[in-house]
Amino acid sequence: MLDEIGVDLALFSDHDSVRWLTGLDLPAPALLFFERGEFTLLADEGFAAAAAFAAEFGCAFVPIVGYTIQQPIDAPARLAEALRDLLADVSRPSGPVGVEEKSLPLALWQTVREALPNCEHRSLEGSLLPLRAVKTEEELARIREGFRLVTIGHQAGRKAVRLGQREIDVWTDVQTAVEREAGMWMQMGNDCIVGHRPANIGAAPLDYDIIANDSLILDLSVVVDGYWTDSCATYYAERPTAQQVEMHKFVEEALAFAVSLIRPGVVAQDVDSKVRSYMSAGGYEVYPHHTGHGIGLTGHEAPRIVPYNQERFQEGNVIMLEPGIYIPGVTSVRLEDAFLVTSDGVEPLSHHDKGLP
Amino acid sequence: MLDEIGVDLALFSDHDSVRWLTGLDLPAPALLFFERGEFTLLADEGFAAAAAFAAEFGCAFVPIVGYTIQQPIDAPARLAEALRDLLADVSRPSGPVGVEEKSLPLALWQTVREALPNCEHRSLEGSLLPLRAVKTEEELARIREGFRLVTIGHQAGRKAVRLGQREIDVWTDVQTAVEREAGMWMQMGNDCIVGHRPANIGAAPLDYDIIANDSLILDLSVVVDGYWTDSCATYYAERPTAQQVEMHKFVEEALAFAVSLIRPGVVAQDVDSKVRSYMSAGGYEVYPHHTGHGIGLTGHEAPRIVPYNQERFQEGNVIMLEPGIYIPGVTSVRLEDAFLVTSDGVEPLSHHDKGLP
Repeated sequence: MLDEIGVDLALFSDHDSVRWLTGLDLPAPALLFFERGEFTLLADEGFAAAAAFAAEFGCAFVPIVGYTIQQPIDAPARLAEALRDLLADVSRPSGPVGVEEKSLPLALWQTVREALPNCEHRSLEGSLLPLRAVKTEEELARIREGFRLVTIGHQAGRKAVRLGQREIDVWTDVQTAVEREAGMWMQMGNDCIVGHRPANIGAAPLDYDIIANDSLILDLSVVVDGYWTDSCATYYAERPTAQQVEMHKFVEEALAFAVSLIRPGVVAQDVDSKVRSYMSAGGYEVYPHHTGHGIGLTGHEAPRIVPYNQERFQEGNVIMLEPGIYIPGVTSVRLEDAFLVTSDGVEPLSHHDKGLP
Repeated sequence: MLDEIGVDLALFSDHDSVRWLTGLDLPAPALLFFERGEFTLLADEGFAAAAAFAAEFGCAFVPIVGYTIQQPIDAPARLAEALRDLLADVSRPSGPVGVEEKSLPLALWQTVREALPNCEHRSLEGSLLPLRAVKTEEELARIREGFRLVTIGHQAGRKAVRLGQREIDVWTDVQTAVEREAGMWMQMGNDCIVGHRPANIGAAPLDYDIIANDSLILDLSVVVDGYWTDSCATYYAERPTAQQVEMHKFVEEALAFAVSLIRPGVVAQDVDSKVRSYMSAGGYEVYPHHTGHGIGLTGHEAPRIVPYNQERFQEGNVIMLEPGIYIPGVTSVRLEDAFLVTSDGVEPLSHHDKGLP
């Protein structure tokens, strides 16, 4: 890819680019330096996995001093110093330098210009995104482990939704179940909200009470080794009302319809449009959000299933589908599942119970 | 300050700079644009508090499109477009542009250079840090609320430390207590580790069991409206051993000694050096970390109480003091309190129980 772009020298500064290229869930800013086929990773000296990675894959590793009591904490300055040293050894002339200009700090670009006066830059911005949309087995293993934890979170959530509890009480039960199972802190999201909220599509949990005839949307992501999952189910404070049962069943059907459309070669915006039509044909207002989206190192990435997107699904995509119905201040339902796009359809990745009680 | 630096035009791109200048706990990248005495805030359109702030303080507000289903999600590109529009209206000649070069992305600097060809930049990097070290009443109110939650977290932690529990079980109890009290998600840290770990100074909780005669260090921060707290106590699985009692009492004395040294005008490195001497005079190995540090929008900021720091304490500093004793693989003790530096000494800000059981 760098050959095609025409650079012998490149800097990957985007946090997700460095994570994807190394497979490391780097906790702090890092830089991946490329020169004529060789990579050098510049990362915090305290991150043991970086040194192990470098040794395993023959990538040079430059440790950057982070926390210290002997001098001010200033990783950006140390990173610039280390980059200056690397650039001193670059064979000249070097041609244009590939950069990710939306994340590369001006200070590092100045370092490049001081070492290689008058050099030009060429954009690498977004160049990895199409590659990131097709997952490897290594990535899928992290994602599958995430969905195992998602199921455990939803089991706790379903149990916690009852009169006398608040959104935040449900959430802390979910969080506790997931973290105790994982045996560690987990980055988690997204929505945990009652149906009687004025805006009941999505938000972080607050101290809203679960009231009579309430619904609660639990939209849960658990991040494993940097890889996001996603999922949604809707639970009820009591026996769901006739209206809730009808809405819930319709969303189940809409989700099944959406799933039936996915296979390699299908255009994302066509799926989006068909599922929106399905909702309105059923007499419901069409949800204002995406029909679905890819996941990976971020919670929302390619392929997005939205009105403008002409991308085609490919084998190896990991996508979410999430139709919903929202009656502001009254009740809402959303159901969401994850799928791996296979050669002729999909393989379900999420396994939480989304059924009516 | 900008007059002294000699700039009529400035960009604050550091997340903490924008938060400190506005008082807003902005969730996403934002930019504060300054021209001849007037500020313009560029921030996500979905962040309602930004518009309210702008209206209240007469600061212009440019909403940036974040999530949308009508076009790719690309806040950095929208931010550059909005900046281009602002720069089109700048009175010329403008002189040098003040920038924070460690955070300003190259893409935004290119936008500046296209609008104002050949303009130079002047560094604002770190210019706000001395100002941030002296807290206002508004900041102290957030910090005090944080310490109220810290006390609740420690109460839950003390109760949770017993045989049969793991580090992560203690942590989820602490987290649940704090979040249920706050009625919302809270950013929290830092350490929750048993004494029998080989490295028992600090780390996130894992599935280490609490074993016979164990100690557990709970170093707890709760972040309220962007403002960090910090605190540490040490709890015991059973009745503490004679060695643990002796260590615990000595650390209590070391902490009291450290507190007694703090007043405006005292040099940070002198406190650091005296407390380290106190530890070694007591026959203990000196902790390898800071003696203490300031807190604010980050967990570690000025004034750092470390060997190199010649800063003097000022009225309005909020500082932590945290001596500890660590016997790797056996047991460890750390006790930490927070103080506001007053005109003649300190006012305690943390109120959690650090005593022996």
